[in-house]
Amino acid sequence: MPTRLEDQIRFITEIDKLKSIIRRTMLIDRSRDENSAEHSWHIALMAPLLAEYADRKIDVLKVMKMLLIHDVVEIDAGDTYCYDPGAHADKADREQKAANRLFNLLPSDQATELRSLWEEFESADTPEAKFAHAMDRLQPLLLNYQTQGETWRAHGITIDQIRKRMAPIALASTSLADYVRELLNNAVERQYVAKPENSRE
Amino acid sequence: MPTRLEDQIRFITEIDKLKSIIRRTMLIDRSRDENSAEHSWHIALMAPLLAEYADRKIDVLKVMKMLLIHDVVEIDAGDTYCYDPGAHADKADREQKAANRLFNLLPSDQATELRSLWEEFESADTPEAKFAHAMDRLQPLLLNYQTQGETWRAHGITIDQIRKRMAPIALASTSLADYVRELLNNAVERQYVAKPENSRE
Repeated sequence: MPTRLEDQIRFITEIDKLKSIIRRTMLIDRSRDENSAEHSWHIALMAPLLAEYADRKIDVLKVMKMLLIHDVVEIDAGDTYCYDPGAHADKADREQKAANRLFNLLPSDQATELRSLWEEFESADTPEAKFAHAMDRLQPLLLNYQTQGETWRAHGITIDQIRKRMAPIALASTSLADYVRELLNNAVERQYVAKPENSRE
Repeated sequence: MPTRLEDQIRFITEIDKLKSIIRRTMLIDRSRDENSAEHSWHIALMAPLLAEYADRKIDVLKVMKMLLIHDVVEIDAGDTYCYDPGAHADKADREQKAANRLFNLLPSDQATELRSLWEEFESADTPEAKFAHAMDRLQPLLLNYQTQGETWRAHGITIDQIRKRMAPIALASTSLADYVRELLNNAVERQYVAKPENSRE
């Protein structure tokens, strides 16, 4: 077997492990928590369907590649729950080490391309990275809403925490941010999530 | 909420069910069988990594979209085991009905685009569809090989059946077909799969 193809197959085989990284989002049928591979599938498919709402022109192929690989580092670094500030302290360091090992399984040109896509996602500076982040935030919101906030309530998450978590969506798309605002108002009204403690409502 | 976005969100919510469609391929860590959503993630990511081996020029974005949606019809039609000829008898009919319901949840322009991508995949006539099929056949082969043929042996699959199943890879890529031939020879040598009954070896 040529070495180049051998290296590509080694990476493809290694990333099978992403299917065993468990997130803290329940599937809509509430049968189990979602894993990072199927989450990545979901958002990579959402991107072309919702690309029309991006406020700035985006390269959809780039967004899709970014979303397909954005969680691969979790194979070594684990999934960090977005509402756990303690676990976030060393997240960047753990993920850099993971990126070094995992992307370098590939031939160097592809290692460089995927590493660069992942760094771009992490920096969240470009229109593509901003839109990718919007998909990554919107998808678990949809699942949590459909399960009537089961995971939010289990972890004692407040509406303020969720609104802060969803804020980056507005950096990519005004329309999607409007939609999310409406959805979160409904979530509070339907008691899927706790109201702020100082709420006068 | 605008109706168009409402329809898109309805489709995005509905396809969460693909995560509960179970295939007859074990994960490499042998913890469980793979589902169709994570399988779709895996092959959509393989496509850009292996696109260089396509014998004809392909539009990688189109291939990726095709792979992300190619199994969505299983939400209604179920997964049909590739080595079960009985179940294949009414597969096309079941899947056409599923495609009618599922893609039509989307706004009509997107319903038409995704339906057309899916029909193109099913027909396997274009370079993109042929390459997509190559990814869809290669990925379970890699998983089955890594689990030392556990699923093949459990279902009594022979090397002849597998070689026939892998034949379409040669319609997309000579290099990948060469690689698969070598891998299958190794699988026989290592007794991951039964030799043909009339073999003189």
